[in-house]
Amino acid sequence: MTSVPISRYPVPDINDMPEDIKTKVLAVQEKAGFIPNVFLTLAHRPDEFRAFFAFHDALMEKESGLSKADREMIVTTTSGANNCQYCVVAHGAILRIRAKNKLIADQVATNYRKADITPRQMAMLDFAIKVSNAAETICDADFETLQGHGFSDEDIWDIAGITAFFGLSNRMANFTSMRPNDDFYSMGR
Amino acid sequence: MTSVPISRYPVPDINDMPEDIKTKVLAVQEKAGFIPNVFLTLAHRPDEFRAFFAFHDALMEKESGLSKADREMIVTTTSGANNCQYCVVAHGAILRIRAKNKLIADQVATNYRKADITPRQMAMLDFAIKVSNAAETICDADFETLQGHGFSDEDIWDIAGITAFFGLSNRMANFTSMRPNDDFYSMGR
Amino acid sequence: MTSVPISRYPVPDINDMPEDIKTKVLAVQEKAGFIPNVFLTLAHRPDEFRAFFAFHDALMEKESGLSKADREMIVTTTSGANNCQYCVVAHGAILRIRAKNKLIADQVATNYRKADITPRQMAMLDFAIKVSNAAETICDADFETLQGHGFSDEDIWDIAGITAFFGLSNRMANFTSMRPNDDFYSMGR
Amino acid sequence: MTSVPISRYPVPDINDMPEDIKTKVLAVQEKAGFIPNVFLTLAHRPDEFRAFFAFHDALMEKESGLSKADREMIVTTTSGANNCQYCVVAHGAILRIRAKNKLIADQVATNYRKADITPRQMAMLDFAIKVSNAAETICDADFETLQGHGFSDEDIWDIAGITAFFGLSNRMANFTSMRPNDDFYSMGR
Amino acid sequence: MTSVPISRYPVPDINDMPEDIKTKVLAVQEKAGFIPNVFLTLAHRPDEFRAFFAFHDALMEKESGLSKADREMIVTTTSGANNCQYCVVAHGAILRIRAKNKLIADQVATNYRKADITPRQMAMLDFAIKVSNAAETICDADFETLQGHGFSDEDIWDIAGITAFFGLSNRMANFTSMRPNDDFYSMGR
Amino acid sequence: MTSVPISRYPVPDINDMPEDIKTKVLAVQEKAGFIPNVFLTLAHRPDEFRAFFAFHDALMEKESGLSKADREMIVTTTSGANNCQYCVVAHGAILRIRAKNKLIADQVATNYRKADITPRQMAMLDFAIKVSNAAETICDADFETLQGHGFSDEDIWDIAGITAFFGLSNRMANFTSMRPNDDFYSMGR
Repeated sequence: MTSVPISRYPVPDINDMPEDIKTKVLAVQEKAGFIPNVFLTLAHRPDEFRAFFAFHDALMEKESGLSKADREMIVTTTSGANNCQYCVVAHGAILRIRAKNKLIADQVATNYRKADITPRQMAMLDFAIKVSNAAETICDADFETLQGHGFSDEDIWDIAGITAFFGLSNRMANFTSMRPNDDFYSMGR
Repeated sequence: MTSVPISRYPVPDINDMPEDIKTKVLAVQEKAGFIPNVFLTLAHRPDEFRAFFAFHDALMEKESGLSKADREMIVTTTSGANNCQYCVVAHGAILRIRAKNKLIADQVATNYRKADITPRQMAMLDFAIKVSNAAETICDADFETLQGHGFSDEDIWDIAGITAFFGLSNRMANFTSMRPNDDFYSMGR
Repeated sequence: MTSVPISRYPVPDINDMPEDIKTKVLAVQEKAGFIPNVFLTLAHRPDEFRAFFAFHDALMEKESGLSKADREMIVTTTSGANNCQYCVVAHGAILRIRAKNKLIADQVATNYRKADITPRQMAMLDFAIKVSNAAETICDADFETLQGHGFSDEDIWDIAGITAFFGLSNRMANFTSMRPNDDFYSMGR
Repeated sequence: MTSVPISRYPVPDINDMPEDIKTKVLAVQEKAGFIPNVFLTLAHRPDEFRAFFAFHDALMEKESGLSKADREMIVTTTSGANNCQYCVVAHGAILRIRAKNKLIADQVATNYRKADITPRQMAMLDFAIKVSNAAETICDADFETLQGHGFSDEDIWDIAGITAFFGLSNRMANFTSMRPNDDFYSMGR
Repeated sequence: MTSVPISRYPVPDINDMPEDIKTKVLAVQEKAGFIPNVFLTLAHRPDEFRAFFAFHDALMEKESGLSKADREMIVTTTSGANNCQYCVVAHGAILRIRAKNKLIADQVATNYRKADITPRQMAMLDFAIKVSNAAETICDADFETLQGHGFSDEDIWDIAGITAFFGLSNRMANFTSMRPNDDFYSMGR
Repeated sequence: MTSVPISRYPVPDINDMPEDIKTKVLAVQEKAGFIPNVFLTLAHRPDEFRAFFAFHDALMEKESGLSKADREMIVTTTSGANNCQYCVVAHGAILRIRAKNKLIADQVATNYRKADITPRQMAMLDFAIKVSNAAETICDADFETLQGHGFSDEDIWDIAGITAFFGLSNRMANFTSMRPNDDFYSMGR
């Protein structure tokens, strides 16, 4: 299946990438064993590539009241709601690994309300879906519900920020027809 | 995870099932190596169980202009649109096996428009989604589009019938909180 | 108006139908005085015909905590929401007869919230509409609301089952352009 | 059923109405044999009553390229889409009489796309539904489609004006829980 | 920009208008300094013009528990929800003047939930949006919420009536491509 | 109105900001004459601030086949569709200035289909709205439509990228209740 394009747009050869991008791409390849196609697709636009991954890392790599598994769960759930194949497949794989749970990604991608999650996680995902679908209606009561589940205001920003960022990512992936690497499908199963 | 209930409703012991149902359940267990939870959940209502599987088999087991893989693709796609975890997980597994394709189920469950499918299959799924979401608007032009892809009127009935039947199944699964067997998640990968 | 087709698909002559189907069709004709077109339309597919009516009878003819009028009210309401002309006209007629109420069918088909119904029936129809439109969001609170109105868990299955089954029926009727018999329009008025 | 209120709001006694309103109400009673509840409900607000019926008559009573049956068909169809019980029941009755067709009102109220109508009427109702649901997207192509069916620009204004006016009426009827008179249900059947 | 048409339909010369309409148009011109295009557009249909402005004045000019600013706020908010450029621009201007607030119109047109308004006004606008988008679901609880904010039943009729009337107006403006006068954009800023 | 908070979250004093952020904020203040609240709100999260503005500048400041006015038109239109008060008010102001057009921002924020724009701009905004609302359905035909209006594939990426980025921005602004500066409302009028 290597002949299927990974993007509607030209994908630069790794040796033609700016040095900082090449370095980042090689590092991810060494760590993951392959280059996730989002790196190749966005390398077509180096400045957007840099901003995209800086934003990603600021939300997904930092210390947070949300575990890394929680964060990937937000990504997989909202990407499912946005019908984004790339993000569901890629972040579903990471979620399985982070949560050490073979079932959770397929569960939340289809219907998080029926997933093996805690009431706290359910509240977190309810809020993420509201940010994704109807952010204009968010109000004090939403904050109070989350606070009642032990989320701090900074945790709530993290939920909203991750949802908003992957809303961008979902739209870019759908628009470019970004293709998930075959490797992701079986990871963590 | 065996302690999680597979249905909101009582699940009968296999030995307490009516003979014909018990026979069908044991046959599927022998073939699949496990009992899909839809059999256990619906056995709570024997008459509905019998009608459900008679309907299922009339559409899914018969000769048709649609391959068995095509039929499972319709099920997985429309069940994704209906956010039905049981059907996406269970029929996604069967789709992988029928289509001998490890990727196809996750692709169509999230966004069939970006899946590795033929234009004919795309037209088939466009129509299935219309039957699922807006059957009241189906008109002659929809039939003409499908005929242009080589579907006979009987094939079109099959697409619509499968979609309508699994619309029923999706609603029953969501309503009963029917849980997909863990076995399905890794089948065919 | 007898020249208008009752289905997009061929309708078999009653004498060409398999014996069991012919028997069922003649029985309904004797009882009702005419053959409802759903019998003729589905007779094009004998196996689906058998499963469809077995399912129908399992839900609509059995003993239940829901009266037969309540059950027809669910059908008419959800068929209205699904814009299904056949089911609104045919089951609206049956509802008028079952409920001995000339007004109720037109009321619930358009807006059950303004119909002459009890709070218990309102809760029943609220749930049916949720099963029809957003089954993936059904949760414990929905069951508690219904239990507060005196519905048993088996009654709740009946509400959901009837809704899910007629969701199938609505899609089949819309897809085949199944035409309601003229007889239904004035029955029970 | 006379004890059910016809409006959430006080309904004035006919003898307490301003003279011009009383005259109009008595005239309609003489013609129809009963007083449609919209007259009684809106008489609570005499100035709005006067403007409402002036608007109604300007659209529904004047000479037009649309027959009176066509106009009632627009009202019944869009009132069905707006789930307005009063207008579907009352104008459905008038439609049956104007069109001399016992079936047409129930057909268009549920799904005009499956009704016994001409392609010209289908185009008329497609446009009315667009004015009702998504007027902001109306564009030149919509006018061209209607012109292709022989509608003049003045006819098109009539379609849109009737739809817009009954959109107001539907909202008032739903908000006041305006109850259709029992008489309407059987008229013209 | 004077060459851009103000309506898809012919606009009569002021001297060709019926005397009563001409008088009303000249009066508004004298007061406002220009003729709002809604007067010119609707003058194409004198009877509808008369009914439209009679309705408008009955709701917008009378004594009410709602201030004139509150009423214009309802118009601007629901016209925003209906994507009606004419009404947002024209009534936004009047709202700025009535409320003596340069910011309020742009706030409520985009998202009234984030506007500088009181909880009472928020409840008023929540209800107006419900009348506009889902009048069929209005129920006793909605009235109780408003009563809890001090609205009388007559005030509630005013909210609903204004919303319903401008729903008509929004559809007419969108359908005719009615153009807001340039003058409105800067009024009250 | 200075007492109204500009964000649900703490806003750092400019002297407590990291040096690079402080420099950027002071530069924008010098240029604009005031500090747009998005800078103050996001300064609560320095890493996200940096990534956000890097992304913004990569799309909005670079050379492009889209003029700066076109880009602001995309932002204002899609922010209107997302009901984002901050972005409609702030970018509407910039749009007025870039386009040297006092009317255009209010027009596109409410209904771009009725705005004073070219067919090419209409196609651009149709596509932006599709990226915003239904990116999963974008297909080859959308690209062909845009190419027919003279857009290059790189221009199309710009339209989609700007829409996706401001989708993130809209969700962040709505979630934080980010308040537009009063200054924006009158700019460019």
